Amino acid sequence: MKKGEATRQRIVARTANLLNKQGYRSTPVSAIMEVAGLQKGGIYRHFDSRDELTLEAFRYAVARMRDRLTGALEGRKSATDQLLALLDVTGKAPRDQAFGGGCPIMNLAIESDDADPKLRAAAREAMNALIGLFERIIVEGIEQGEFSKQNARTLASSMVASIEGGMMLSNLYKDARYLKAITSDLRQRVRDGLR
Amino acid sequence: MKKGEATRQRIVARTANLLNKQGYRSTPVSAIMEVAGLQKGGIYRHFDSRDELTLEAFRYAVARMRDRLTGALEGRKSATDQLLALLDVTGKAPRDQAFGGGCPIMNLAIESDDADPKLRAAAREAMNALIGLFERIIVEGIEQGEFSKQNARTLASSMVASIEGGMMLSNLYKDARYLKAITSDLRQRVRDGLR
Repeated sequence: MKKGEATRQRIVARTANLLNKQGYRSTPVSAIMEVAGLQKGGIYRHFDSRDELTLEAFRYAVARMRDRLTGALEGRKSATDQLLALLDVTGKAPRDQAFGGGCPIMNLAIESDDADPKLRAAAREAMNALIGLFERIIVEGIEQGEFSKQNARTLASSMVASIEGGMMLSNLYKDARYLKAITSDLRQRVRDGLR
Repeated sequence: MKKGEATRQRIVARTANLLNKQGYRSTPVSAIMEVAGLQKGGIYRHFDSRDELTLEAFRYAVARMRDRLTGALEGRKSATDQLLALLDVTGKAPRDQAFGGGCPIMNLAIESDDADPKLRAAAREAMNALIGLFERIIVEGIEQGEFSKQNARTLASSMVASIEGGMMLSNLYKDARYLKAITSDLRQRVRDGLR
């Protein structure tokens, strides 16, 4: 890795942690300069615009979260075990650095949905992938007879909605129990074959 | 009402609509001046600070939402009917001006949870009241034998979490069906006695 590339990646990683807590749109460039340890010119040597840095930081945060989720699927064969593994990881999010500041997709969604079409498009794309991850496992489980027949896309969306809402409450109150109640309830439903 | 008071209320109402869409923290004062039709001096004649205006705008948005929810309870006698009424109002939120830009409490929660303790305190207080509204009806329903015995606070929190998550998805995709799937599912659970 070239020195310039290493610097670029360090800026993206530090900016990702900052923006997921302080806001993708509301954080001033001065705060990014501080965590990056660079002057404005040093940052803009690597990025054409604040928008470009914001999007790269968001994608970094989402990729880190996705790695955590897909990593938990390794060695899990049945759809039931795979869904339980996803619920296990998301239920522990308040103690996981990959979720510091909450779910980056929900954070960007709330900030951008009525305010910034370009960022909203990025949030939609990431949310599609997250719902799709749950959906594919549910489809597999229905095909294998583990889960009862139903609209997998709707169920996946509703599961993700509940998890995101629980994450929001836990992050608001700084109390992991709100999210835990949600994921425990969902785990029971998965064990019952999603009837 | 004195003229000054009418102007003040007009600023609060217009700022509330603006901030719930564009962000409580990220919206520049210039955008507030534009919707209020006033210069900076004209705004700050009525408010000591941007913080004061932000908090008043938030409380206005929350009060409007609460009025919609409590208004739906009128004439509903059983706990079952009352919960169904709340789910009916929240399920229709994407078409309701009182929810323009999404739920103000979730919006402020996401923006403030790791960034602004004063705004976070306001978001917590409003969320307590929202969860409390669901909780009191569930407690009543358990006492009257309509619902099975359980922790009413936990169930109320989980219902609110699911609704908020559904509202986030519907507002992200500009598609009311995400929220509708959540509230339809919850309505069925209420009809089944929350078992």
